[in-house]
Formats: sequence, structure tokens, C-alpha cells
Amino acid sequence: MTDLNTLGEIGLIERIRQEIPTPTHSETIHGIGDDAAVFDWGDDYGLLTTDMLVEGIHFDLTYVPLKHLGYKAVTFGVSDIAAMNGLPIQVTISVGLSSRFPVEAVDELYEGIRAACVAYNVDLVGGDTTSSRSGLIISVSVLGKVPKDLITYRHTAQPNDVICVTGDLGAAYLGLQLLEREKQVFLADPNMQPNLSEERAYLVQRQLRPDARTDMVHELRDLGIRPTAMIDISDGLASELLHLCHQSGTGAVIFDENLPIDDQTHLAADEFKISPVTAALNGGEDYELLFTVRPQAFEKLETNARITAIGYLTPDPTQIVLSTKAGQQTPVRAQGWENLMQKK
Amino acid sequence: MTDLNTLGEIGLIERIRQEIPTPTHSETIHGIGDDAAVFDWGDDYGLLTTDMLVEGIHFDLTYVPLKHLGYKAVTFGVSDIAAMNGLPIQVTISVGLSSRFPVEAVDELYEGIRAACVAYNVDLVGGDTTSSRSGLIISVSVLGKVPKDLITYRHTAQPNDVICVTGDLGAAYLGLQLLEREKQVFLADPNMQPNLSEERAYLVQRQLRPDARTDMVHELRDLGIRPTAMIDISDGLASELLHLCHQSGTGAVIFDENLPIDDQTHLAADEFKISPVTAALNGGEDYELLFTVRPQAFEKLETNARITAIGYLTPDPTQIVLSTKAGQQTPVRAQGWENLMQKK
Repeated sequence: MTDLNTLGEIGLIERIRQEIPTPTHSETIHGIGDDAAVFDWGDDYGLLTTDMLVEGIHFDLTYVPLKHLGYKAVTFGVSDIAAMNGLPIQVTISVGLSSRFPVEAVDELYEGIRAACVAYNVDLVGGDTTSSRSGLIISVSVLGKVPKDLITYRHTAQPNDVICVTGDLGAAYLGLQLLEREKQVFLADPNMQPNLSEERAYLVQRQLRPDARTDMVHELRDLGIRPTAMIDISDGLASELLHLCHQSGTGAVIFDENLPIDDQTHLAADEFKISPVTAALNGGEDYELLFTVRPQAFEKLETNARITAIGYLTPDPTQIVLSTKAGQQTPVRAQGWENLMQKK
Repeated sequence: MTDLNTLGEIGLIERIRQEIPTPTHSETIHGIGDDAAVFDWGDDYGLLTTDMLVEGIHFDLTYVPLKHLGYKAVTFGVSDIAAMNGLPIQVTISVGLSSRFPVEAVDELYEGIRAACVAYNVDLVGGDTTSSRSGLIISVSVLGKVPKDLITYRHTAQPNDVICVTGDLGAAYLGLQLLEREKQVFLADPNMQPNLSEERAYLVQRQLRPDARTDMVHELRDLGIRPTAMIDISDGLASELLHLCHQSGTGAVIFDENLPIDDQTHLAADEFKISPVTAALNGGEDYELLFTVRPQAFEKLETNARITAIGYLTPDPTQIVLSTKAGQQTPVRAQGWENLMQKK
């Protein structure tokens, strides 16, 4: 018998993938290996993604309000559709609940789900409700669409492409640290009131109620830009940059001083003695997009405050490095399965 | 705070449904309230269904081999697509695993998933793999299609329609009783070998590795028959007949002597002192279809050994009754949420 941890999550997915029969339906264009599966629906490509969120692994109800969790579950799936340069259309949500949850908890969860459906303009069309032995489980599937000439995969980037990220990075991770600290304070003294100052609101919001970047999909279309590759980085910038490079057969250089990090993230990182660069690279849960564009296309994005160029792709797939201000280069590394299991 | 059990599963779904915003995408034809959501995809309707299976609620790994479980998970979703008179095209499977599962367990589960994909001619296109705090969780989503003029809903049946079921009923429930008994014997004496005789193989197979009736979808098409309504009865014949009647605004009379019950089911029911009619009505987990046809259309089905007429629809929606040989009529009742929670 082989322990799952020896294989790792990537190893496990690769093992499953290798054993999957070739699709027999000609409309199935692309299966496992991207943010969403791709189907030929005539004028457009159809997109389908599915994610599972498990209490105690992906969220801690000590400090995650159910309303925010419902919103975040939809964000999870919508972000995968956005990463294919698509827009979401329908969503299904399945919920497994242990008997400790009252009806009001379900109401609260669905309040957040509904708010997200309105925010992302997606129709809630179904789901399943079941009991569970312990805790809350949420499974979300999102159907979306993308015009055929706009789809973006992970494997189509080229050397010299500019590597861009949307928004800023590391804030969700520092938000988690703040919430975890407050939880410990609360556990030590349940009469203690949480001490989350106004200035920290951004970090906490990034953790509890992140938004998927469908706005960037619209913006790129308006600018007439189709990325050469794109990927959702909610699992962490480092691991997703590695995926994009491995699948495209390229290397990469990214510059630590270019990583977009909010002032609040810097302040909290100081306080927690965490490197803000590590938080940005490996913190995860930033529902942002990593994408690449041809150098000439980047000119149209240069002045866009919501998009930051963090480096460029190189021809040598063995060299995926972080370059410091001092010129030092270190290999970009992803977190392991074990770390993820502990963190999430 | 209100206990979930006071609301019941149907009440909970109704509560969620009432609060769902009206779809904003014109291609969303039908959302919650049928076996699958329905989308306008041009020539065809697209279908999407999602289900969640939780260890300890839906399956007991003491006697359910993981290979069979993988197969059954796909069957679960495919059966919902068949109930809309559709055929499945793509499937995604998400799996939550606690650390007690070795890599070999995942292999076994996926072996069954793959076998089902081949059997139902469906492409496995994605999923999610995550850890769970306790036990195994499987979420399955299936995309399918149906020609627009063949779709069948639950709400479109009419009085005088003939009520039909495919296959036979109650076998899966008796299979479960056999497996539960063997489990108790094993728990009392782990050296004891299971005593599942050859004759019982059919019952155990109906419980462990049921097949969705996509074959009946093909057969009905070949015969040129479009049911007036159809529903999957894996939750039990009684509850699903009630759904069909409530949504169609009809009553029904079904005849106990017409219920298709296998000889092995009769024998095992005798042994367990369970009424075979109760097993057929409320046992559940028979992955069969309940459908209605106009009386004139039924002539084409009369000699079909795989389809049984069990009664007819009536105009009075308050009268949904089981009629015995002696002419006695009793109201058809569904199992409650609590019973389901205990049983599954």
C-alpha cells in the first residue's frame, strides 16, 4: 500500500489522467489538465469546471461566515472559467450537511450563493442536498462559454511572452494569518472581542470574500487582447507559473520587486515576520489570473493599473527563476501536498 | 434555530428553490425541480446534473468495493440524464479523501469510474481531488443532450396516461439487507467467511453495481415513443411517483400485483420478513425509470419484457393510491428524510 502523501496532489492527478480513456465524442476538445474542460458547441467553446470544498480543509467555520463561504464557493468555479478567457453561464451547487447545521445556516449559505450568482451574472440551475457524517461539504460546477477565437489554455505560451498578473498578491494569505490569530485569542478567552482594525479590512476581505476576475476577461476583450496562455492562481502563483511553463515547454524569469503587493500586505507581513514575496508566491487563495501576452500586445496593457508585468518567458524549460533586485536568481518552487493539507 | 429534520429534504429544496433568482440567460430553459437542468443549445437541449455521495450516508466501505462505488457514482448522474430522455456525453468527478486511503484505493475507485465511462459512452473530462477530514466524498456532474422534440420533464403527464417502470424493483434494497447481515456476522466474528450464495448474486449486484437505463432511452427512441413524463426512481418508486403527480397535477392508481419484482427479491423478502411491495415502493436504489405514455402509445410497449405497466394517472391530484388485488386502496406515501438518513 502506498501513502497518498508520497505521490502528492500533482502526482495523483497525473496518475489519474494517464489512465483516462481517450474521449469518444468529437465535441470533447480538451479534458483534464486545464482550469476547465472544453467542448465544441458550434460558434463557441463550452467550458465546465468542478471543485469541492471541505470543512476543516478549505475553510474554518470558526471565522468564516456562511454567507461569505457561499459567495466564495461560486467564486472558486467562476475563476476557473475566467482563466479560460470565458464567462460563466450556469452553476450547480451540491451541499452535504451534518445535523449540527440548522435551517438558518442553510439560508445564510444560499444568501451568499445568490449574491455571487447576481455579481457574476450566472444562473443557479441545480444541485444536490444531502446529509454528511461530519461537517459541511460544498461541490460547485460551473458551465461557461468562450468564443472559439478567444480561448486560452495553459500550454500555448511562447518564449519572450510577458508574464502578467491581475490585482495584487499575498493579501488573502495575510488575511488568513490575522483570522487564525484572532481565533487563537478567542479560544484562549472566549470573552475577548476580535481586534480586526479597519486597516486590516482589505486583507480579511481578500480571504473571506474574494471576487473572481470576470472583469478582466471583459477588459482584455475590450482591448482586443487574447492572452497566449492563462491560469487561475488561487492555488498560489509559484505552482501555477510552474504549470504554465511545464505545459508550454518554456522557462521563466520573474522579478520579486515587480510582484504586486498591497501596502497592507507589507505591513501585516512585517508583523507576522513573513516574507511578503513568499506570501505572494506561495500564499494562495488570491483569485487572480496569471497570463502571458506577446511583447507587442503588452504595450496596450502597460498603463493598466489592474495588470502588472512580473517577468517574461524564456526558451529553457529547466530555468524557472525568481530574480531579486540584487540580481540573484533562485528557482521557483511550488508548495507540496503536505503543506497545502496543513495550510488549507 | 430550526432543526433541519423538521423541514425535511423536500422542504429544504423547496425553500432553496423559492429564493433562487430568475435565470437571466435566455438559454437556461429549466433549472431546479427536475432530474437535470435544461439549456437551449440550438438543435438540442443540453442537460446538466450533479450529485454528491458521502461515506457513511450513501455507502458503507465495509462491503462496497471501491471499484463498484466508482461505477455507481457515474450511474447516479447518468440515470438523471436518462430520466430527461437524454444521453450522457461528459462527466466530471471530484473526490475528497481522508489520509486513511492509500494510492491503490484511488486506483480502484477510478477503475470503476473508467468502466462506467466506457459502458455509458461518456467522456471523463475533469474533476477535483482534495483531502477530507473524515472519509470519502464523491461529487459527480454529468452533461448530456436530448433532441428538443424528445425531452421529457416531470410536470407534463396527463390523466389516463399509462404509468410504466423499467426493469424490476426492490432488489437493490434486499441486496442491502443481505450485505448488512453479512457485515454484522463479520463484525461478530472476523474469521467468518461471507455467505452470499450464487442465487443471491442478482440482489447484491443490483445494490453494488447498478446500471443506468440509457438502453431504455435508445429503445424508446427506436420505437418512436416519447414519454409524456419521466423520472429516475433511485430515491424510491413511491416518492418519485408523488413528485411526478404533484408536478403534473394528476392523481394515480397503481396496482400492487403489477409491480415488477424478481423471484430472488420475493425469496429474500420472505426471509427478512419484509413486504416485497414495500421494498419495491420505498426500498430505493433501483436505478430504473418511471415514465408515463398516452394509452395509444402503450400498445407498442405491451409486449416489451423490460417495461411494465403498473397503473394509470387520474384527474384528481389528491388521490395517489396503491390498489391491492382485493380492491383495497391505500394512499402512496414517501419515506421521510429521517428514514432516508438512517437507511442510506
